[in-house]
Amino acid sequence: MATVVQNIERADRAAADAFAEFGVATAHEAQGRKGLLDPALNPVYPGAMISGTAVTVSVPPGDNWMIHVAVEQCADGDILVVAPTSPCGDGYFGELLATALQARGVRGLVIDAGCRDVAELKSMRFPVWSRCVSAAGTVKETLGDVNLPLVCAGQLVTPGDVIVADDDGAVVVPRAGAASVLEATRARAAKEQASRQRYAAGELSLDVNDMRGRLAEKGLKYV
Amino acid sequence: MATVVQNIERADRAAADAFAEFGVATAHEAQGRKGLLDPALNPVYPGAMISGTAVTVSVPPGDNWMIHVAVEQCADGDILVVAPTSPCGDGYFGELLATALQARGVRGLVIDAGCRDVAELKSMRFPVWSRCVSAAGTVKETLGDVNLPLVCAGQLVTPGDVIVADDDGAVVVPRAGAASVLEATRARAAKEQASRQRYAAGELSLDVNDMRGRLAEKGLKYV
Amino acid sequence: MATVVQNIERADRAAADAFAEFGVATAHEAQGRKGLLDPALNPVYPGAMISGTAVTVSVPPGDNWMIHVAVEQCADGDILVVAPTSPCGDGYFGELLATALQARGVRGLVIDAGCRDVAELKSMRFPVWSRCVSAAGTVKETLGDVNLPLVCAGQLVTPGDVIVADDDGAVVVPRAGAASVLEATRARAAKEQASRQRYAAGELSLDVNDMRGRLAEKGLKYV
Amino acid sequence: MATVVQNIERADRAAADAFAEFGVATAHEAQGRKGLLDPALNPVYPGAMISGTAVTVSVPPGDNWMIHVAVEQCADGDILVVAPTSPCGDGYFGELLATALQARGVRGLVIDAGCRDVAELKSMRFPVWSRCVSAAGTVKETLGDVNLPLVCAGQLVTPGDVIVADDDGAVVVPRAGAASVLEATRARAAKEQASRQRYAAGELSLDVNDMRGRLAEKGLKYV
Amino acid sequence: MATVVQNIERADRAAADAFAEFGVATAHEAQGRKGLLDPALNPVYPGAMISGTAVTVSVPPGDNWMIHVAVEQCADGDILVVAPTSPCGDGYFGELLATALQARGVRGLVIDAGCRDVAELKSMRFPVWSRCVSAAGTVKETLGDVNLPLVCAGQLVTPGDVIVADDDGAVVVPRAGAASVLEATRARAAKEQASRQRYAAGELSLDVNDMRGRLAEKGLKYV
Amino acid sequence: MATVVQNIERADRAAADAFAEFGVATAHEAQGRKGLLDPALNPVYPGAMISGTAVTVSVPPGDNWMIHVAVEQCADGDILVVAPTSPCGDGYFGELLATALQARGVRGLVIDAGCRDVAELKSMRFPVWSRCVSAAGTVKETLGDVNLPLVCAGQLVTPGDVIVADDDGAVVVPRAGAASVLEATRARAAKEQASRQRYAAGELSLDVNDMRGRLAEKGLKYV
Repeated sequence: MATVVQNIERADRAAADAFAEFGVATAHEAQGRKGLLDPALNPVYPGAMISGTAVTVSVPPGDNWMIHVAVEQCADGDILVVAPTSPCGDGYFGELLATALQARGVRGLVIDAGCRDVAELKSMRFPVWSRCVSAAGTVKETLGDVNLPLVCAGQLVTPGDVIVADDDGAVVVPRAGAASVLEATRARAAKEQASRQRYAAGELSLDVNDMRGRLAEKGLKYV
Repeated sequence: MATVVQNIERADRAAADAFAEFGVATAHEAQGRKGLLDPALNPVYPGAMISGTAVTVSVPPGDNWMIHVAVEQCADGDILVVAPTSPCGDGYFGELLATALQARGVRGLVIDAGCRDVAELKSMRFPVWSRCVSAAGTVKETLGDVNLPLVCAGQLVTPGDVIVADDDGAVVVPRAGAASVLEATRARAAKEQASRQRYAAGELSLDVNDMRGRLAEKGLKYV
Repeated sequence: MATVVQNIERADRAAADAFAEFGVATAHEAQGRKGLLDPALNPVYPGAMISGTAVTVSVPPGDNWMIHVAVEQCADGDILVVAPTSPCGDGYFGELLATALQARGVRGLVIDAGCRDVAELKSMRFPVWSRCVSAAGTVKETLGDVNLPLVCAGQLVTPGDVIVADDDGAVVVPRAGAASVLEATRARAAKEQASRQRYAAGELSLDVNDMRGRLAEKGLKYV
Repeated sequence: MATVVQNIERADRAAADAFAEFGVATAHEAQGRKGLLDPALNPVYPGAMISGTAVTVSVPPGDNWMIHVAVEQCADGDILVVAPTSPCGDGYFGELLATALQARGVRGLVIDAGCRDVAELKSMRFPVWSRCVSAAGTVKETLGDVNLPLVCAGQLVTPGDVIVADDDGAVVVPRAGAASVLEATRARAAKEQASRQRYAAGELSLDVNDMRGRLAEKGLKYV
Repeated sequence: MATVVQNIERADRAAADAFAEFGVATAHEAQGRKGLLDPALNPVYPGAMISGTAVTVSVPPGDNWMIHVAVEQCADGDILVVAPTSPCGDGYFGELLATALQARGVRGLVIDAGCRDVAELKSMRFPVWSRCVSAAGTVKETLGDVNLPLVCAGQLVTPGDVIVADDDGAVVVPRAGAASVLEATRARAAKEQASRQRYAAGELSLDVNDMRGRLAEKGLKYV
Repeated sequence: MATVVQNIERADRAAADAFAEFGVATAHEAQGRKGLLDPALNPVYPGAMISGTAVTVSVPPGDNWMIHVAVEQCADGDILVVAPTSPCGDGYFGELLATALQARGVRGLVIDAGCRDVAELKSMRFPVWSRCVSAAGTVKETLGDVNLPLVCAGQLVTPGDVIVADDDGAVVVPRAGAASVLEATRARAAKEQASRQRYAAGELSLDVNDMRGRLAEKGLKYV
């Protein structure tokens, strides 16, 4: 039953790459507040901001064998997305696998489990978003799946979807909608840039967004 | 019922400002170990150390409308204190609101909920202490209160109270007692400085603080 | 009943010191995946990597008196290991105690409880692994034990055992086996170095570790 | 500084008693969704439903001495409300203190910490709402306060306020507003009773509460 | 964009009903260890054991309006499955909605959020599996979706899938595979019944399942 | 390396059995507040109260093979104590293993991991204390140890030690000290019985334990 899907359809490369500039919060808003992975997933070091296409791996608890299998399925511009079939905080991933992935152009890892070799990952600038950090290694005994759709940190991820990740967390943008979500993300970022300048100049969002009338209508009282 | 109190009495500016030099742990001890906010609130980036006067905002779960309302009530030297009426980890606050607050001289935010745009907040040096980080945005549908007393992270905060926050967390010092707590904080810091020099020189706290007798009395046995 | 054991047998100094180069994950693997402290213990600032010999302290909840007692029992190259007798998140430890320990050549602290003065500890480069950060101080009322075996963060630590700690957490290596575990750690690190070079050159772990046959045998299907 | 306030003004007895019939959720709604204690506080056995007047106790972490002091301040119809000055999960309270309180007519305990003797408390029908269950006892070394206002599980409780507690948790109703909140609670319960009968008969809340128009207006689409 | 799908294809009624007899653990095993909802979801009272067909509801944080909408879409034998779009512990559901659902033959609720009126739900025997219990009510301001596929507690649930829930948690069985999973569940239950009798008679699983050889092969040593 | 120790020295049977009458809290106090397992371990159903001798099992994460091996080592009056080598919430144990253990006279299970078949365990009155409940099963691939000393839920347990467990949790009493701890437990229970009668008659612990003087000395002020 354990399956590796070798040829997946990836989101358009240019679109997938373009999201990194805007970050998770803007992409999430632009997508109608969908697709945010559980905020319990955190970057193992601050400052990374990436986007790319998902290669998915479903792993048994405490067993990282399928991550080794998945490396071969990765291409330049991918982000590995790993979820255990039951909750597990072991350290599935460290610098050796990161070295192998980096050699293939993979941009990072999102894993709903533990990670280790945090200092080395930071030195080599291979970013990881994980549920926790643990030096506990894993075995290689039981199979899983590569490139089947899976639920990672509460979100359905289909291979080839766009993943965006930064210090705020990670979001998935389905492949089919990537272009239009990117457009909405750009529009939102432009609008935010305009607001930012007005706020920096001392204007209030109450005025910039014309909120005073609706606040009064709801009954807000100033004393 | 939703209310904005426009004129609040703030703690003495010089006293409020002076706490930043000493930090949370010393102020908390000097105040008789009162006022510490739940240690689950953490800085979103390390290294900030601030003090100022509280402007308080009570918000519904998942709704940050009242933070926009509160900006107008803030003045130079304030710290915004936000608490949801029921537990919520959404990202109520990001760089746009930070830009607006920074333009008014606000020094930081303490929020018993989630925060986003962590990388941008770090770049612009606007410190935030929050329960978590989440890119999930909030709506603007339901009112709350600005500048009424509230409980934030387990502590009662009255508008105008002093807030001190650093890498150890955050503490509230009631407005009325700020001057005398500041004095006690200074005295404690001076005493700690003296102890530090003796410890650095190799003296033992057992001797510096004359503990050996009381330890023996309680029955401590050396073998 | 409260006891301080004054003369403990420490692991061989050279062996204890040598572990720092390899880090927690490699030592833990080399030891047969034993001895890892609960991953809920985290460094209060990133980047430290130490090893040394354990001096143990059993403390009551909310009471750090025995840490003061323990300072006197510490020697150059030691790491202090502290566990409360029931779970407690108070800030047992701060810069003053760190100053005293650093003056004696102690390399760091591992504590299954809270820590404070995080910014100062980072400035003075005294690393601490703790369950949480809290500015809440502790009293000095009740005795405990120094240098008796204890359970810290789920692992039995005997005074004189080797402790290794880095950004991945902390591991205990029993004194008796330190030399042979060190040898295994070195061997593992050498093997990892060889793998790292092959992975960096684009080789797959599937091939380097000859996994394809066993995967097929277990029934892995490529589609 | 440690203080016992001996004479407190209690909410009207009849009002305080009357809340028990309606329970926490209805009282909380009727009060405008204020006053709910952190839902992390749970009954140690199911099925109790009480209301009464608060006697408050502020205790140090791991020290229950002041609960013994508080017993003397309790009267028939009271509920003891206990909060530690920093988070602590020790078992502050067991059957002996429950026996003493029951002898004085106290109806139950709400504690933002741990409780023990759960089986005995169930046999004697003395209900407790606590953050956790722990057999770990506490010491009697450090003072605290009885009958000063305190924050318990995130809510400000003033001595004499009404506490309502059942399987859904606990809520505080300030003394001054108890009568009017009770009236609103009764009204809400009556309205709910009417709705319940219509729902039981198969009517839809969409119709009973006339929601269809507003749903359509917001853009809900049936397919 | 908010959508209610009115006609969904439900799993075969007889198959959906038959799972209740076997329970969650057996169905989960029989399905190849897939589909288990996050074990953080617990029954609000013990002893219920149900199965039925899923009607799904996606709700905003702190807003239960769409549950009211969903009632109309429910039929005899259904189980309501509710997930918030971002984590929320509020009490979305209580006895009034339960009354409405029970009147339509709905068997229970699975919700990745909070629930209230626990005592009443127990009296009326309407079972609920929830992440927590909270008396905090929700608003009716923002739309969501009914009967679109969603992720609930980490598992993808498509409307019409089979849900099985008991004291061990809840599992989803996709509609398409329900019949064959039921068959496998029955087979497994029969095999377990045979084993149970042999174990009760004192036989060892080492012998019943012929494990001794493989244990020896792996190197197990008896001393 | 994986080892099964076949002949262990058990605590005196009469002493081990006698603890059940007094329960965890009293035994823990009588032992000088040592040996309490992490309060995060809870009974899967309320009302059990047992004591017996420990048979210990160290298991890999997600693998219950060694529990099957351990059954053979159990004798009448034993309690099985299981700890995973890294944190794991899977359901290691269910009714089949319970049937096998009950057939040998084993009184219960204490496991620092997950358990399943909760309803069946309750029907057959086989009590389990576990960290969580999960229907997720485990594999049988990797060896562990039976009857070596281990750390379970933060406490060192040596095979043959006494385990006491009830609704308050679980405590370990080392074999060597069992008789004297039992005596202290009996004495404490007798003293508590005397206090209980005086408290039930309305006497205050302030008087029964003569606390007023010491309270005044510490500075308690009545107002």
